[in-house]
Amino acid sequence: MSGPYGYTQAKALVYSKYGEPGDVLSLHTFSISPSLPSSTLLLRTLATPINPADVNQIQGVYPSKPPFTSLLGTPSPSAVGGNEGCFEVVSVSPSITSVAKGDWVIMRSTGFGTWRTHALAGESEVLKVNKDGLTPTQVGTVSVNPCTAYRMLKDFEPLVEGDWVIQNGANSGVGRAAIQLAKQWGIKTINVIRDRSDATATEDMKKELLELGATKVVTEMELMDRGFSEQVRGWTNGGREKVKLGLNCVGGKPTSALVKCLSQAGHLVTYGGMSKQPLQLPTAALIFKDIKFSGFWVSRWSDANPVEKKRTVDEILEMTRLGMFKDVPVQELRWDWGTEESVLKEAIQGTLGGFRAGKGVFIYGDT
Amino acid sequence: MSGPYGYTQAKALVYSKYGEPGDVLSLHTFSISPSLPSSTLLLRTLATPINPADVNQIQGVYPSKPPFTSLLGTPSPSAVGGNEGCFEVVSVSPSITSVAKGDWVIMRSTGFGTWRTHALAGESEVLKVNKDGLTPTQVGTVSVNPCTAYRMLKDFEPLVEGDWVIQNGANSGVGRAAIQLAKQWGIKTINVIRDRSDATATEDMKKELLELGATKVVTEMELMDRGFSEQVRGWTNGGREKVKLGLNCVGGKPTSALVKCLSQAGHLVTYGGMSKQPLQLPTAALIFKDIKFSGFWVSRWSDANPVEKKRTVDEILEMTRLGMFKDVPVQELRWDWGTEESVLKEAIQGTLGGFRAGKGVFIYGDT
Repeated sequence: MSGPYGYTQAKALVYSKYGEPGDVLSLHTFSISPSLPSSTLLLRTLATPINPADVNQIQGVYPSKPPFTSLLGTPSPSAVGGNEGCFEVVSVSPSITSVAKGDWVIMRSTGFGTWRTHALAGESEVLKVNKDGLTPTQVGTVSVNPCTAYRMLKDFEPLVEGDWVIQNGANSGVGRAAIQLAKQWGIKTINVIRDRSDATATEDMKKELLELGATKVVTEMELMDRGFSEQVRGWTNGGREKVKLGLNCVGGKPTSALVKCLSQAGHLVTYGGMSKQPLQLPTAALIFKDIKFSGFWVSRWSDANPVEKKRTVDEILEMTRLGMFKDVPVQELRWDWGTEESVLKEAIQGTLGGFRAGKGVFIYGDT
Repeated sequence: MSGPYGYTQAKALVYSKYGEPGDVLSLHTFSISPSLPSSTLLLRTLATPINPADVNQIQGVYPSKPPFTSLLGTPSPSAVGGNEGCFEVVSVSPSITSVAKGDWVIMRSTGFGTWRTHALAGESEVLKVNKDGLTPTQVGTVSVNPCTAYRMLKDFEPLVEGDWVIQNGANSGVGRAAIQLAKQWGIKTINVIRDRSDATATEDMKKELLELGATKVVTEMELMDRGFSEQVRGWTNGGREKVKLGLNCVGGKPTSALVKCLSQAGHLVTYGGMSKQPLQLPTAALIFKDIKFSGFWVSRWSDANPVEKKRTVDEILEMTRLGMFKDVPVQELRWDWGTEESVLKEAIQGTLGGFRAGKGVFIYGDT
């Protein structure tokens, strides 16, 4: 919001100690001078999602922890929550030519707190995106989940058309992205979802994922059934088609059952552990079946591969623009200048409950 | 043994059904015609070890199962036990020029039953070795354990001088080979051994492995101690030197403790599971510490890489010849023409007891 003397009035959700978001977050108001430091952009926030990892970061249980600073003039050194988002360039310092007023940008790396109405960012901290035909939510949610799915499908096993991938958490943001990307690349998918409370809800979810491009959708109970690997043999032409890759965000026993469906020399890539149970690896799967186990963390990948990140983001956004890549279901949470601190904090705290109809995304209004 | 009309009288330990070696093995006598089929060699056996996997194979619990055949004229179709050994060429069919009478050969692949006094082998089934300065035991035990250690150190992580490897089962054939190869290549090793019944025996074992080239030797109890990873930080110059590779033949909780000692992006390679416990992988080790888990099976590697196998065997035997690679402790078990079936069967059954002073190796006498 415009303040006196050309200053911008801004707000940010900050925390100065780790804990539950409802306890430690506060809404801080600050102002940004109209004379920008060199190589700096003034950004207005358009959309920022709430990812589960954002909440874990505030709880202090996430390995990447942004430093607490006094840059925003908070009473004690603090960090801004959030890691992803879509921003509009409001103004740039004179030397900057790579982006201009009105352009949209995303953050190059995670760790730049994004839950704020405005930000000053270094030119090298942002990636410009082509905004034509896209919504702020589409741009603001591309760097974590879709990039995770894209890289897991590309960087661990060389998949060719007709190969299979099996994944759990198929209804998640990553899972839905993997279904769509695999479909476009001619890769077939076996998708495991959690059993719903009633059969109709389960069937609806299966139908939704099949429409998105899934080849097969099964519940965790179906996966755990003794006969399931025989069923997979049937789907894969008696094992002649290979299940080369598994994507895991669950862990525990259901993941051991998933590993049994991988073909000889298959690869399980873990990117989450929703069950909070470790993986159990039978020795024989490693030695005789030659199964490989790796992990993927999109923050590490982004930091190590900035050029490839831009290329990946651009490709996914182009698919989105062409209608070939559908958004995850979203619950928009409006953030206006007058929105109460308690409303914003509840939106974040509620993310861990897990019963939101879609991914929570702050949409910034008259800020 | 020479028979009438130029025939060779031979014996082999065969089995025609799976079970305990003491129950299912029998000593079968057969004869080999002096007129060899084309492209065939007549071999006299010099030394064949008893590996634990040989016993598992007879029990039927090993994934590679040689087919039962009637080639040796056994009452029912059967297989010959054993997978490794050193053989002397007695005669060759006329067309063969790659090997000659008096040469020593080993088997190119596992699965050719080796517990026998003589064998007919195809030219393509054997690898000729340079026997100069070597004993039959050295040649007869090179293809499984030393090759396993060599490939695990070479094929999973690019190690450079000053890097560290941590391994359990350090007193095993593979463990001792890994210690010596790593030492020669400038790689430091942390070696975990099982706790002995008394402190003196433990100290003796530590001393023996240190003399072999181990950088550090610890017991499993020391490994499981809470402060152990701090100790590793001390050894590795505060973590500036990297523990890039772990070699595991144990499994279960002690292996989880070993994984904690690996550096960021380290790799655990499993080649055995002596504890019969699965590996437990905490999700965070996969995602945030980027630890990779693979398995190694020397039979698969040999079959897929015959040229590289010959090169690896030649290199290890050259080190042995130069006194740079010491044999594992061996308990020689003599196999003469008159040795009773029961003695041979007991030698094999005893392997699983695990209290032999060294690796059991049949040395063939007046056969």
